[in-house]
Amino acid sequence: MSAPLLTVSRRIRRTPYTERVEAAGASAYTVYNRMLLATVFDSLEVDAAHLKRYVQVWDVSCQRQVEVSGPDARHLLQLCTPRDLSRLDYGQCRYAPLVGRDGGMLNDPVLLQVGPEQYWVSIADSDIPLWMRGLAEGRGLAATVEETDIFPLAVQGPKAPALMARVFGEAVHDIRFFRYEWFEFNGRPLVVARSGYSKQDGFEIYVKGEDLCLPLWDRLMEAGQDLEVRAGGPNLIERIEGGLLSYGNDMTRANTPYECGAGAACKLDTDPPCLAARALQAEAEHGPKRQIRGLRIDGPPVPNCRSPWPMAAGGAYGGIVTSAVWSTVAGTNVAIGMVERDFTASGTRLTVEAPDGVRDVTVCDLPHVR
Amino acid sequence: MSAPLLTVSRRIRRTPYTERVEAAGASAYTVYNRMLLATVFDSLEVDAAHLKRYVQVWDVSCQRQVEVSGPDARHLLQLCTPRDLSRLDYGQCRYAPLVGRDGGMLNDPVLLQVGPEQYWVSIADSDIPLWMRGLAEGRGLAATVEETDIFPLAVQGPKAPALMARVFGEAVHDIRFFRYEWFEFNGRPLVVARSGYSKQDGFEIYVKGEDLCLPLWDRLMEAGQDLEVRAGGPNLIERIEGGLLSYGNDMTRANTPYECGAGAACKLDTDPPCLAARALQAEAEHGPKRQIRGLRIDGPPVPNCRSPWPMAAGGAYGGIVTSAVWSTVAGTNVAIGMVERDFTASGTRLTVEAPDGVRDVTVCDLPHVR
Repeated sequence: MSAPLLTVSRRIRRTPYTERVEAAGASAYTVYNRMLLATVFDSLEVDAAHLKRYVQVWDVSCQRQVEVSGPDARHLLQLCTPRDLSRLDYGQCRYAPLVGRDGGMLNDPVLLQVGPEQYWVSIADSDIPLWMRGLAEGRGLAATVEETDIFPLAVQGPKAPALMARVFGEAVHDIRFFRYEWFEFNGRPLVVARSGYSKQDGFEIYVKGEDLCLPLWDRLMEAGQDLEVRAGGPNLIERIEGGLLSYGNDMTRANTPYECGAGAACKLDTDPPCLAARALQAEAEHGPKRQIRGLRIDGPPVPNCRSPWPMAAGGAYGGIVTSAVWSTVAGTNVAIGMVERDFTASGTRLTVEAPDGVRDVTVCDLPHVR
Repeated sequence: MSAPLLTVSRRIRRTPYTERVEAAGASAYTVYNRMLLATVFDSLEVDAAHLKRYVQVWDVSCQRQVEVSGPDARHLLQLCTPRDLSRLDYGQCRYAPLVGRDGGMLNDPVLLQVGPEQYWVSIADSDIPLWMRGLAEGRGLAATVEETDIFPLAVQGPKAPALMARVFGEAVHDIRFFRYEWFEFNGRPLVVARSGYSKQDGFEIYVKGEDLCLPLWDRLMEAGQDLEVRAGGPNLIERIEGGLLSYGNDMTRANTPYECGAGAACKLDTDPPCLAARALQAEAEHGPKRQIRGLRIDGPPVPNCRSPWPMAAGGAYGGIVTSAVWSTVAGTNVAIGMVERDFTASGTRLTVEAPDGVRDVTVCDLPHVR
């Protein structure tokens, strides 16, 4: 199966930026939260090399912004996550695995508190608002959960600070990693965070109001001409090299935060406790049964990883490869996988059933490339 | 924007049938419940003509089967829908709009009761299990909501009964519309319903167990050779001609069941009452503010409808066109739209802002073609 054509309809939404993304030559898309997300412009390799050297503007509207507000907003969020939210404060971005009662990951958003009883949840690919609404409804909590008219833009790459300073002023340099500040564009306030789905430096702009979207896109492109700015998107090579996980690819509802390497950030005695506190207790004490690890796969460039590839260690089941790609920088295939407990040590050798045959695999730490 | 390429990864799942669908020459797909759904094989026109004359086998695994079970299963479902489930019995398929407290449509599945405390929900494109789980969790209901390993196949077209009889026996002829019966294949029980997302005759087979999928697909293809059986999928032309609605396209969470033409099937004093009973009361008494209607759009074949096209009636807002396509059979563009109350009468003339210019529109009943 080569890449098939995608039929677009209202059900799979365009974003306020889609016309610019098209004009910039996006050649492939994925569907994320029922919205278009460009995956390739020139080629994965050319896009990755550009991202690491210059600056790119990404339409990440598909990180749907969900606003949770009301007197019980924090209570509701704390029920959903083993991250301790008691000290979450204005100006912070917090990665928070969201789980059901069984401890399985339902989403892994970044949370921002933006008002006294007001939170923005920058969601991964699942209709997590439905879970939160159902829970709030069932418990009679005074909290509303609504999708907002925020359409985030990511500005990523080593030249991102220079570009952002031209548009928002020198103060952007002072935003620390995973913090945000309020700035202005065209007289309107918007949140700028030092964050993004790449391991290059960068920002995410929470653009509120559809009418601001194209003016800001155009302003960034214009201001960055001599910085070689171009349109881009999350890049498969750069994200695997950097060890960035993808919900739905590297982990699913079948996995716990401990399996996903977020155990150190979990606290099971929050107030209120996360719904999964009891289910996760054993893992908190004894560690998870499997864990996300880096993998290097021998041989020539691997084909696309469209469904998990099973791994073996001698006769035993070793886990699955969930994301894989050739890395020119690493000079080998770099991958991410869910590895069974006995085989997680760096240097462990496994085999994987790739679509084109059995290959040798070595377990390693993430990121693959620093 | 011509049809872009789709990047496939684990997050956008292949189905147990995908390899056969590919081999049959699917040329475009959409993503439905994060699964691949083929939309075009030869061309929409050729596919539609074949569907109306012969028989097609469709991979509709993306109608994820959700099993709701436990002592409170029916109670949970009744909270979610204004359809009266009190008389739902074995052997029936029931279309049930699922709504939140505000009355907005969250999904519009078909429900089957298959055991004393066991229901299958054949879902449209939203993570409705998250809503049901959150609600059950919050209310402390004894009901579990789980995705099953059922991968439905639709067998659609006028030759469908003949083909199904060859594989399952003559008894398939006795299944009435929107009823189901248990049959056997390879010694395993499976549900066969007289239903499907076309206006041709047809069946949906609830194939339980991934290992049964390819054997059944192959058996149907083999048994139907002289009936001109081929692979297919829901066809945009046939479904608009037939007036079949698509959740996410023709209606969203912003619409109520009354707006979607399901008002006659709603009952607001069920036991327990649907969560939206109060919110829907005014519409039950006075009718909805807007309604789904058929539309005929003048002029040459319309471009693809990728986002709603606004309609006007003189200076007033008239509603939106949500799905549109050229119909050779009707000799005009047939469409579905959400029309504001004042303009819903058949024969009302409106104008629409299509991407290629303003066109004249006439309101009409559905289906467009009988």
